[in-house]
Amino acid sequence: MHFAFDPRTETLRESLLDLMERHVHPAEGVFEQQLGSLADRWAWDSVPVLGELRAEARRRGLWNLFLGKGHSLPGEEGAGLTNLQYAPLAEITGRSPELAPAVLNCAAPDTGNMEVLSMFGTEAQRKEWLDPLLAGEIRSAFAMTEPDVASSDATNITTSIVRDGDDYVINGRKWWITGAMNPNAKVFVVMGRTDPGADRHRQQSMVLVPRDTPGLEIGRAMEVFGYDDHDHGGHAELVLRDVRVPASNLIGEEGAGFAIAQARLGPGRIHHCMRFIGVAERAIELMCDRAEGRVAFGRPLARQGVVRDWIAESRVRIEQLRLLVLKTAWLMDTVGNKGAHTEIQAIKIATPRTVQWILDKAIQTHGAGGLSQDFPLARAYAGVRSLRFADGPDEVHKNALARAELGRRAAVRNRAAHTDVPQPLTTPAGSHQ
Amino acid sequence: MHFAFDPRTETLRESLLDLMERHVHPAEGVFEQQLGSLADRWAWDSVPVLGELRAEARRRGLWNLFLGKGHSLPGEEGAGLTNLQYAPLAEITGRSPELAPAVLNCAAPDTGNMEVLSMFGTEAQRKEWLDPLLAGEIRSAFAMTEPDVASSDATNITTSIVRDGDDYVINGRKWWITGAMNPNAKVFVVMGRTDPGADRHRQQSMVLVPRDTPGLEIGRAMEVFGYDDHDHGGHAELVLRDVRVPASNLIGEEGAGFAIAQARLGPGRIHHCMRFIGVAERAIELMCDRAEGRVAFGRPLARQGVVRDWIAESRVRIEQLRLLVLKTAWLMDTVGNKGAHTEIQAIKIATPRTVQWILDKAIQTHGAGGLSQDFPLARAYAGVRSLRFADGPDEVHKNALARAELGRRAAVRNRAAHTDVPQPLTTPAGSHQ
Amino acid sequence: MHFAFDPRTETLRESLLDLMERHVHPAEGVFEQQLGSLADRWAWDSVPVLGELRAEARRRGLWNLFLGKGHSLPGEEGAGLTNLQYAPLAEITGRSPELAPAVLNCAAPDTGNMEVLSMFGTEAQRKEWLDPLLAGEIRSAFAMTEPDVASSDATNITTSIVRDGDDYVINGRKWWITGAMNPNAKVFVVMGRTDPGADRHRQQSMVLVPRDTPGLEIGRAMEVFGYDDHDHGGHAELVLRDVRVPASNLIGEEGAGFAIAQARLGPGRIHHCMRFIGVAERAIELMCDRAEGRVAFGRPLARQGVVRDWIAESRVRIEQLRLLVLKTAWLMDTVGNKGAHTEIQAIKIATPRTVQWILDKAIQTHGAGGLSQDFPLARAYAGVRSLRFADGPDEVHKNALARAELGRRAAVRNRAAHTDVPQPLTTPAGSHQ
Amino acid sequence: MHFAFDPRTETLRESLLDLMERHVHPAEGVFEQQLGSLADRWAWDSVPVLGELRAEARRRGLWNLFLGKGHSLPGEEGAGLTNLQYAPLAEITGRSPELAPAVLNCAAPDTGNMEVLSMFGTEAQRKEWLDPLLAGEIRSAFAMTEPDVASSDATNITTSIVRDGDDYVINGRKWWITGAMNPNAKVFVVMGRTDPGADRHRQQSMVLVPRDTPGLEIGRAMEVFGYDDHDHGGHAELVLRDVRVPASNLIGEEGAGFAIAQARLGPGRIHHCMRFIGVAERAIELMCDRAEGRVAFGRPLARQGVVRDWIAESRVRIEQLRLLVLKTAWLMDTVGNKGAHTEIQAIKIATPRTVQWILDKAIQTHGAGGLSQDFPLARAYAGVRSLRFADGPDEVHKNALARAELGRRAAVRNRAAHTDVPQPLTTPAGSHQ
Repeated sequence: MHFAFDPRTETLRESLLDLMERHVHPAEGVFEQQLGSLADRWAWDSVPVLGELRAEARRRGLWNLFLGKGHSLPGEEGAGLTNLQYAPLAEITGRSPELAPAVLNCAAPDTGNMEVLSMFGTEAQRKEWLDPLLAGEIRSAFAMTEPDVASSDATNITTSIVRDGDDYVINGRKWWITGAMNPNAKVFVVMGRTDPGADRHRQQSMVLVPRDTPGLEIGRAMEVFGYDDHDHGGHAELVLRDVRVPASNLIGEEGAGFAIAQARLGPGRIHHCMRFIGVAERAIELMCDRAEGRVAFGRPLARQGVVRDWIAESRVRIEQLRLLVLKTAWLMDTVGNKGAHTEIQAIKIATPRTVQWILDKAIQTHGAGGLSQDFPLARAYAGVRSLRFADGPDEVHKNALARAELGRRAAVRNRAAHTDVPQPLTTPAGSHQ
Repeated sequence: MHFAFDPRTETLRESLLDLMERHVHPAEGVFEQQLGSLADRWAWDSVPVLGELRAEARRRGLWNLFLGKGHSLPGEEGAGLTNLQYAPLAEITGRSPELAPAVLNCAAPDTGNMEVLSMFGTEAQRKEWLDPLLAGEIRSAFAMTEPDVASSDATNITTSIVRDGDDYVINGRKWWITGAMNPNAKVFVVMGRTDPGADRHRQQSMVLVPRDTPGLEIGRAMEVFGYDDHDHGGHAELVLRDVRVPASNLIGEEGAGFAIAQARLGPGRIHHCMRFIGVAERAIELMCDRAEGRVAFGRPLARQGVVRDWIAESRVRIEQLRLLVLKTAWLMDTVGNKGAHTEIQAIKIATPRTVQWILDKAIQTHGAGGLSQDFPLARAYAGVRSLRFADGPDEVHKNALARAELGRRAAVRNRAAHTDVPQPLTTPAGSHQ
Repeated sequence: MHFAFDPRTETLRESLLDLMERHVHPAEGVFEQQLGSLADRWAWDSVPVLGELRAEARRRGLWNLFLGKGHSLPGEEGAGLTNLQYAPLAEITGRSPELAPAVLNCAAPDTGNMEVLSMFGTEAQRKEWLDPLLAGEIRSAFAMTEPDVASSDATNITTSIVRDGDDYVINGRKWWITGAMNPNAKVFVVMGRTDPGADRHRQQSMVLVPRDTPGLEIGRAMEVFGYDDHDHGGHAELVLRDVRVPASNLIGEEGAGFAIAQARLGPGRIHHCMRFIGVAERAIELMCDRAEGRVAFGRPLARQGVVRDWIAESRVRIEQLRLLVLKTAWLMDTVGNKGAHTEIQAIKIATPRTVQWILDKAIQTHGAGGLSQDFPLARAYAGVRSLRFADGPDEVHKNALARAELGRRAAVRNRAAHTDVPQPLTTPAGSHQ
Repeated sequence: MHFAFDPRTETLRESLLDLMERHVHPAEGVFEQQLGSLADRWAWDSVPVLGELRAEARRRGLWNLFLGKGHSLPGEEGAGLTNLQYAPLAEITGRSPELAPAVLNCAAPDTGNMEVLSMFGTEAQRKEWLDPLLAGEIRSAFAMTEPDVASSDATNITTSIVRDGDDYVINGRKWWITGAMNPNAKVFVVMGRTDPGADRHRQQSMVLVPRDTPGLEIGRAMEVFGYDDHDHGGHAELVLRDVRVPASNLIGEEGAGFAIAQARLGPGRIHHCMRFIGVAERAIELMCDRAEGRVAFGRPLARQGVVRDWIAESRVRIEQLRLLVLKTAWLMDTVGNKGAHTEIQAIKIATPRTVQWILDKAIQTHGAGGLSQDFPLARAYAGVRSLRFADGPDEVHKNALARAELGRRAAVRNRAAHTDVPQPLTTPAGSHQ
């Protein structure tokens, strides 16, 4: 056991920190400004400064870092990093959450879609969709969540995908489809049911649906606390009415949808969590700065006990959380998704509430301004609050985690019950009396 | 960065777990029973079964494991483990907190005193006191806390130590001196002031005071939630009236008391925290067992949402905490007490409240019995609650940790202020308009 | 709606506060001292100073105040106060929780038993047991809780009460029988099952069992944390083996046990809660005193932000809680136990955790001494912690309260569904377009 | 003490509930729709349906209910209700927080401004501004908060108001001026400093500044999370550059600004708190409805322990909170602002966090939709979160409340120190021995 990053990680961290300091942070205002003058407010990835930043990132080899070991076939792009190597880089991008992930072509939901195509796509699918995604030329969306069911459980999905000759015909309703308002989101990975009669985890399949497919209607944009998140393509409601795609658009095989969704989940979870740890670190910095600069009742906030308590708590909490996320990344690298199951659940539970708490205190330190557009805090709060639902509400994960814990303990009890009772070294004194 | 224990740790863990399973746990009741029939209720280390268990521990080389690298001079006892190697062993002893540490001769406050003697003691002092302590023949106490001052800050200590010819003469009042009610606690490490005029951190010294020194009065036993903790020697109030010891009983040099106390602190903090993580793990097991076995409203508690929430939370919290304590141990091994300062504070803040929360839920799962002598839970709760004061209340540590965080951040701001402002890659669009 | 006490309450409060100030508080140490020299440590009500204080209380008419309206038949003792009048007096006794309730003959479990006898006892039962209880000559116990079942639900009780000729024969096991270790607890109200085949709430009955009845074995004393609560008769484990009492010892009728238990519950809940509010007020005072008197880092604790936060929070929380308990008392007076059901549950949930939180902070303000015998805080903490189980764990009450809330809301929805949909005043603008 | 509303309150509640049910709730969608088609998105009070609802409210006498006893001179409008009578009506309006207060002409900040004019305005001021405000013809704003100082402490205000001949000349910067984006907000009550050399609480004055006064620049709209609150006139940043108004626009006398601000504060605090209690009640209903209607893992959420826990907690917390706010209203009616000081602070601390907690759980019960525009929950959350700053952050109020508590306790200690020590009734037993 040791706790230092390896040399490759350190080198990448330095380069990325330098990119952030020199280029990304200074460009944040520019990005927002240029975004404001777009004809289509959703077309965020056409903002000029983003293109320039991306060029710089590619020049430095800070491109598609998320695409890990095993995905990086010769000739393919992707950095071939382990989860543990990538995780601290994801944290750094969280310090500029609206811009940095996009600069590195490491923004959700494209990362997950690229992983899926890289692992399960046919050669034709990869050529048509993965290559332009890896090049940052197009965007994509992942259409799983449905308004009418608790879709945290993928087996509840009701959208139907029916084979009809050489096509699949899709009917259903989706919402919270992140990025889909962006006209440059050219392809949607749609999850639906191909075989309602099959085993619970074999009913679902995934198909690729190009944006311009007839019958695919991109409806209203969902808001989160008043934000429409147009700077990463919003969250769309979709209606699919007799949407017809060629059978070759199936990803993997029929019935593999649930398994693919699970495979997509683990790394994405780690990316999200690490980015939000970066968000929290930035919030702690802002809290410290404000606390030094703001005087109330004759003393800077930084010298007032309650504010110090918040700062200390923030540090204590974030240190613990980061270690757990990093350990989860290590487990995924060494024992795989399945062996890391409890930890993957644990970071889903621990991250949003920890970061939310820190953001709340950072906001409070800033006074009413902390809730406004003048600081990134309220926006980040909205983001992390929504993480308490993403991939299923915390409560679902806690329930599952407890069941596993109870199961492990029951196994120990059973084993003990079938073992000879251990004998004390000595006869109890009392037994002679 | 990786998260597996090294082979030596794994070997020792296996041997220790086996000792616990075969010998320690089965002897817990015997220990309590024999303790109950002692003539002197405080003389806990004279209980027969303890001697037998110790013999077994020595046979297995599970003895004085705490005495780390650098302490293990040739010919000396001590296992030469790093803090990171010892920490997971300390956790295991926490599963039987009244018995296991003593079985391994790794119980506070002797561990800290042995470290002090090992590092700072003269040859004569080591021969007279360290050798029998390492052999488990005698016990010791550490007399720092005073009733009248906030002695979490060692510089507040008021007990006076005055040189008088070849002697030191000590006057003062101490309380919460753990282990001191045990008549076999043959020597006390007493902290006091030798030079009130010196620099704040050079006023204090430590001297060895044998138990039978005239003027040393061992007063009443302090209680914690009604427990007198006689099974590890209680917590005594001491009065020192013109207590006279030879000048050769000084540990280190005059004025070194504060520095020695600091050196003693770090490893002890890790031991405590890891043991309490062991306590928490045991509590989670008991909570699971009870939840499976107890039926209310027609279903076992284990199938009720609120209880599952507690179990999941317990797991999520303890995993994070353990990683932070282990990282702290690693930092102490690699960059020393000083480099690990923030983390040593952080685990002091994080451990008691996390373990207290888990114990509270384990108790609640057990019903009123959980508060009683029938389970180890209430006793452990009292112990961990008192850890929120030990070495200074949480609030003191939070305050210091926040000050350090603010300082680090101010340094970054200052550095940034003296650097050329980074230039954006591009001119803001707005500037042309 | 108004929030002032009525004149009778004010007069009694003044007299009681004066009694507390002049006599009860000054006698607290004496009581403890005399208790320590008793031959039988459990016989707390034979302590001389208690007798003297009781005489003074009777002289002032501060006697049996709990015995409310409707119980005070002519010639009977009892003050005839409403619950709302008695509640603030109970709070005051909570400022000296070990002594004051006993001085006023208002200590549990006798109060509940006296109410039961007053409401449901035959004339003979009242003459034999109620009269000496009202006179403070004997003590009693209430034996409901059983070790093997979740006895928060009275319908789970397994102790059997079988009619045999003119007798009842009782077999079973009880624990946590408060007061029963006191040899002067002359009679036990025992809850058991007379008719296992009856409707769920008609299976139970209550019988009076004199202490010296053959077959009634008073076993070990349960501890709460490390306290045995001998100063109010401890908490006993009982075994009942073929215990035979005359049929005339039945309270009320066969099958009425559950209903009597419910009737006993409401007022007792209010007494407990108000007493603990008194405990909390005393803790706030101690916290303030300590905060003023203790200096750390150059300033009294009272000037440090975190401690001020605790004090403010304590005040904010206790004010809300007290109002809810008083409203509950008012509801019981005006609409009865049943109409006050939600509130009776709510105060059970709200009181222990609020008071526990305040005690925790008061303890923390006192440093390690706060956990010891030097202050009443740790003892009170143990008491209020056990209230989270008394009459069933919080979780049971929360569950029931939520079910009721959901039920009320469902009724509203149903009503709305059968009503004509209300019409807007105006046609929506959009409908013309 | 009793807890029922008086007949007048009950009558008004019934009428108001009927208005809500028949007219206000059904019009909510209409209001939003009409608001969306306004040419000026800030001119919310010109929405047609609002006018119709207001006519209905006036017809029923549900108009200007906030304007309490003492304000209602003969011939004046205003209902003459006590704070305690108005409070439960304010709660009901909180069930439709964007619409109902405006329908009743009881929306902030006009209510406070009307009170100020009613109490301190000259006849001319009242004729010019109060009359059209009471008639609902114009709107107003209250300009106190400043971006550069901790303006929770009104004595920090830096805007200058300088007498110049028959005029006052005002210079300064304000932000978070609620309602000011609405072009129909015709007059601003501006707080500034007339005499920086005077005693700390006599430096400030208030003047009336008509919207169209040259030099008054209404700048950008502040956002709260992503909401601009255009449906009640937003929150503006103002710049005042040599703004000149006649001296007759002074409210009260020079130096009275602080006192007027304090007088304005108490009732407003109660209105806010009660409205948010209404918000919370609505949230509990939505939580119950959703819990019944949503199935996860085979059972409705309403049957899952964790959700039930949230519902129960919500009920327990809101009941306590409401009672405290009502008691505060009663205190203001009976002993005035000053006598109710601690309670006015307490409800400021207790309300936002309680309601925020309930909203968080209601949101969580709704899944991601709970954060969106589909439910009123996220919007309400943003509102109540900002209440944790309004009139100063919670921490300021806690600090002041604790100081008062410590002061009261010190007074008791001092009194006790000057009283003869009470004597125990009896000599301690131990003293003879």
